[in-house]
Amino acid sequence: MLYIKKEPGKQLYFQIYEYYRNNILSGQIAENTLLPSTRHLADELSVSRTTVDTAYQQLLAEGYIYSVPKSGYYVSHVAHIKPAEASPSFRAEDDTAKEDRIYIEGIRYNFQYGRLSSDTFPYSLWKKLTNKVILEMDPAHITAYNSRTGEAAFKEEIARYIYSSRGVSCNADDIVIGSSLLTIISLICQLFQGTIKSVAIEDPCYDTARSFFINHGYDIYPIPLTDDGPDVQKLADTDARLVYITPSHQFPSGKVMSVNQRIRILQWAEENNAFIIEDDYDSEYRYDSKPLPSLQSLDHANRVIYTNTFSKSLAPALRTSFMALPPQLKELYDMKFSNYNCTVPLLTQLTLTRFMAEGHWVRHLRKIALINRKKHDHLVRQITEQLGPFVKIHGNNAGLHLLLSVDNGMDEADLVAAAGAKGVRVYPISHYYANRPAESNCVLLGFGALSHDDITEGVRLLREAWS
Amino acid sequence: MLYIKKEPGKQLYFQIYEYYRNNILSGQIAENTLLPSTRHLADELSVSRTTVDTAYQQLLAEGYIYSVPKSGYYVSHVAHIKPAEASPSFRAEDDTAKEDRIYIEGIRYNFQYGRLSSDTFPYSLWKKLTNKVILEMDPAHITAYNSRTGEAAFKEEIARYIYSSRGVSCNADDIVIGSSLLTIISLICQLFQGTIKSVAIEDPCYDTARSFFINHGYDIYPIPLTDDGPDVQKLADTDARLVYITPSHQFPSGKVMSVNQRIRILQWAEENNAFIIEDDYDSEYRYDSKPLPSLQSLDHANRVIYTNTFSKSLAPALRTSFMALPPQLKELYDMKFSNYNCTVPLLTQLTLTRFMAEGHWVRHLRKIALINRKKHDHLVRQITEQLGPFVKIHGNNAGLHLLLSVDNGMDEADLVAAAGAKGVRVYPISHYYANRPAESNCVLLGFGALSHDDITEGVRLLREAWS
Repeated sequence: MLYIKKEPGKQLYFQIYEYYRNNILSGQIAENTLLPSTRHLADELSVSRTTVDTAYQQLLAEGYIYSVPKSGYYVSHVAHIKPAEASPSFRAEDDTAKEDRIYIEGIRYNFQYGRLSSDTFPYSLWKKLTNKVILEMDPAHITAYNSRTGEAAFKEEIARYIYSSRGVSCNADDIVIGSSLLTIISLICQLFQGTIKSVAIEDPCYDTARSFFINHGYDIYPIPLTDDGPDVQKLADTDARLVYITPSHQFPSGKVMSVNQRIRILQWAEENNAFIIEDDYDSEYRYDSKPLPSLQSLDHANRVIYTNTFSKSLAPALRTSFMALPPQLKELYDMKFSNYNCTVPLLTQLTLTRFMAEGHWVRHLRKIALINRKKHDHLVRQITEQLGPFVKIHGNNAGLHLLLSVDNGMDEADLVAAAGAKGVRVYPISHYYANRPAESNCVLLGFGALSHDDITEGVRLLREAWS
Repeated sequence: MLYIKKEPGKQLYFQIYEYYRNNILSGQIAENTLLPSTRHLADELSVSRTTVDTAYQQLLAEGYIYSVPKSGYYVSHVAHIKPAEASPSFRAEDDTAKEDRIYIEGIRYNFQYGRLSSDTFPYSLWKKLTNKVILEMDPAHITAYNSRTGEAAFKEEIARYIYSSRGVSCNADDIVIGSSLLTIISLICQLFQGTIKSVAIEDPCYDTARSFFINHGYDIYPIPLTDDGPDVQKLADTDARLVYITPSHQFPSGKVMSVNQRIRILQWAEENNAFIIEDDYDSEYRYDSKPLPSLQSLDHANRVIYTNTFSKSLAPALRTSFMALPPQLKELYDMKFSNYNCTVPLLTQLTLTRFMAEGHWVRHLRKIALINRKKHDHLVRQITEQLGPFVKIHGNNAGLHLLLSVDNGMDEADLVAAAGAKGVRVYPISHYYANRPAESNCVLLGFGALSHDDITEGVRLLREAWS
């Protein structure tokens, strides 16, 4: 029988509605049954007629009952189903990827890649700029869908920056803003949908990028690395017409693509009507020379899609990346994606625009490059002094990580486990390979989030763990 | 010959670097040529030796030159190419989709769908909450990659909201936050990559969603609409195992899916191991009854992927959408996408969380539903009074738009053009059809961004245009 009680968050009308709905769905109240009149039910339940009427209107709108003029409401012919059992949990677990959590049980020194020192982010400046942006923005813009590919002023700042610092020559209109590398690669995959079926990747490479392509249905050709970049001859042996590379700082090996390999891959692209995705993810960090100009700066045949992110130099939590498309691909983009909206919130875009336009960005880059250079040098010194001759450093002098091969008889898993037992987290690299090497004694150490003291102590513990 | 002048934005070392790079690439400076000593060149150019050394280190790092101990730097063997011509434009055009701009030449009354009144967004509250979030956040979180599927507290608020207001029964952990419907559908397409090849859609439907699927390589089955929703019999005749529908408020027709059709489509999904994407995009707006519960609330076989957005009720510029996955699909998601990061910035997520947790969201919904109900009623009244019997209203009593069929001999294009000539923009609907009807005399009128006076005057001009 229907009864009404005060339940927090449940309106009275809804209890009446729910009672009838569930009983009609289960067949407890048969087809063509006449419902009580609103007056009668309202009296019986001591609620207002409006409450009952709201419930009936709801049942009517959804087709549970029908109305017969001057007679009343009757139960419709409804197929019988068991209603869903509603006992949801409103508690969510933190599902940050395990390696991205700061505190991992027992781990005191986490040589994690991709995290920056929290004291490098300009909080009070960011707050000030955000306030300015909210106050000064055209109110009509926040309640609207805005620029398809990103705010014009933001694209202008980015075009200026990548030209002056990375040698990227593109028009502001050829830039597309997206919320992450996944968004950017997804757009590229959609752009070539139906025309390109396979993509070549470096082997090893950033495994998440590899899975982006696979999850978009692309076939993968892993191209082995030589000392000066991906093996372009092996690339030419495939029928791939798209290749994803990291020329300035190969991930994870840290290798730099030589100018000859660069020219060779550009020629390959031109001759095969192919395209190159250049991921320039942490090119701001180079410690033995100035940052290397982008591959795109050598491209005179419009074959390079240049992509970069604010994650490695400012903050991953801003979720802002971008790409610069060659003009003919931008034309295709505009045609194919004329209804696609930019995925980065307007406030984020406008705050970043101010940050760049007012000169904070260049100052920030200079500051964070210096901080990370010092960390890098300190880590290299600690490794050399404390771990000595039984380790070898690879891919240093750039970026926010280096590789360490350890010649003590342990394999990758042993090295990670022994370090972990001492409270130090270092990272395996074999999952970056499409064709995994038979054995590896190599691990990855990121240093972006650690202090000098942490680095010293972490390396000391590594010595204990590995000797 | 190399000369140095002050160029704003170009460092001295870079001019030296660029001179050698370009001349080596073009072959002007031959392989194995010895470069001047740093001391010699520094004297000649009146720059410091460090400047020259920086340029040489850069050329060395990129492979343009090689070093011979105790002798100097020599030009490497480099393939000759024409360097890219660098004359980029840093001016970007506003590429907001034309129909999304506020001021279209000559258009005074724009019955555009998808835009809200700018005075409905709570600016000062948003500013206050954003400041609080920046001040109170754990600094370590902004310089890190955070929760893969969205912040736990945000997912809890969403789970609570869609349960109480939309009857959606899911655990907070089954929710995935994404920056737009495109992001959500892209994730779904990637999730089913390799297992499902075709998707059924309503015909007509939101054309952009249709293109998302096509651009991910899916085959499309358009399913015609009956009076109470998509024709489930026709759906069952296809081999589709995924269907995208808008049960609460079919776009663009405004039809409501009856309970019998709902049960039928759930049964179809269960029997065919198929899944239903329920896009509940503007279900908060229903004017003749309470909002209709979601299809998901009837699903006891875990077949419905529920998706919704903050664009229609708060602000499109926040770029925040979400989906609730059935548990078995969430398990697949976690397995397949263990490295995918959430695409919505942390600040946006945390600000929205506070907005919901402090009760502003429910108050805002109540306010904006009332505002839009009044606009809707006013528009219906104006149409009835001013346009009279030669028009018919379809799909009213819900959402932020309605359809108007006009019986004056004009077709869709004529109607849009005649309205435009009077300064009123109404929208065609035939592009929403996969199988376009031979002729249509129907146009779409959105009312979310117009004032009552604008509506009155806009409809008056429509009478002039169409009679």
